Amino acid sequence: MRTVIAIYVENKYGVLARVAGLFMRKGFNIDSLTVGKTHDPDFSRITITLNGDDYVRTQIVNQLKKLHNVKAVKLLEPATSVERELVLLKVKNTPQNRSEIMAATEIYRAKIIDYTTEAMCVEITGESSKINAFIKVMMPLGIIEICRTGVVALDRGTSILEK
Amino acid sequence: MRTVIAIYVENKYGVLARVAGLFMRKGFNIDSLTVGKTHDPDFSRITITLNGDDYVRTQIVNQLKKLHNVKAVKLLEPATSVERELVLLKVKNTPQNRSEIMAATEIYRAKIIDYTTEAMCVEITGESSKINAFIKVMMPLGIIEICRTGVVALDRGTSILEK
Repeated sequence: MRTVIAIYVENKYGVLARVAGLFMRKGFNIDSLTVGKTHDPDFSRITITLNGDDYVRTQIVNQLKKLHNVKAVKLLEPATSVERELVLLKVKNTPQNRSEIMAATEIYRAKIIDYTTEAMCVEITGESSKINAFIKVMMPLGIIEICRTGVVALDRGTSILEK
Repeated sequence: MRTVIAIYVENKYGVLARVAGLFMRKGFNIDSLTVGKTHDPDFSRITITLNGDDYVRTQIVNQLKKLHNVKAVKLLEPATSVERELVLLKVKNTPQNRSEIMAATEIYRAKIIDYTTEAMCVEITGESSKINAFIKVMMPLGIIEICRTGVVALDRGTSILEK
């Protein structure tokens, strides 16, 4: 089962290494991880996605809560949360593929943010399924490089992670 | 000096923990970190931002290159690369602040992606400076939660990180 975990941590030395180390020791393979500061400079928020059954999910949440500098941990459910991902994608620019890149970019509401005679760089934002579909369209056109943020997610409504 | 490091790694067990552990052991504090799969399922790309002088930059690149499963490391320069970040931001929805949130959202080309009678969730994409400016505008309106991806970046033109 695809699982999204939100972790609220103190901005202290080594907290990210401890979190990543926990997943390594337990043998859980992370699909994506993002960490960024919050509006309170003393705290950061980590979002991790991975595949795991109910046992794995419970294990992870319990273990994470025990880690030093971890203040709150929550599983975010797709039905009650919003989820986004950002991808930069560099694709070959040739007379043959140019119009297809531009059409797909428009339809997916992506944006061309760099253009040279040899390559275009496209920015796209959305849920992972949309991003994956766009990458599939670009694949045969000659992807040079991809940089993917991984998922960020927030609960809908006023519920709040930090404690 | 603000530094953006792109790291191309094999999708192997524990590679993220090794990278994060290196920064911890050396005492370098990471500002943001993202890790996501590339179009080749065997490889992921990690992007890290931090502050560091020339000595720190050289040290990090050399140390990272020695790590197991790390295939390529590059410092990305602002002048020759594109950089983006994605933020989800939940802000209080009141009759007093509603029109200001909507005006700022439009001007910053952000998007309201969830709306309840108590809160709105805004999605914004851009360079870090734009994101920081938007957060500053939202701050007095009552930010409930923020989830920030951290920076992703690609070199302009056809140059490529992976080897």
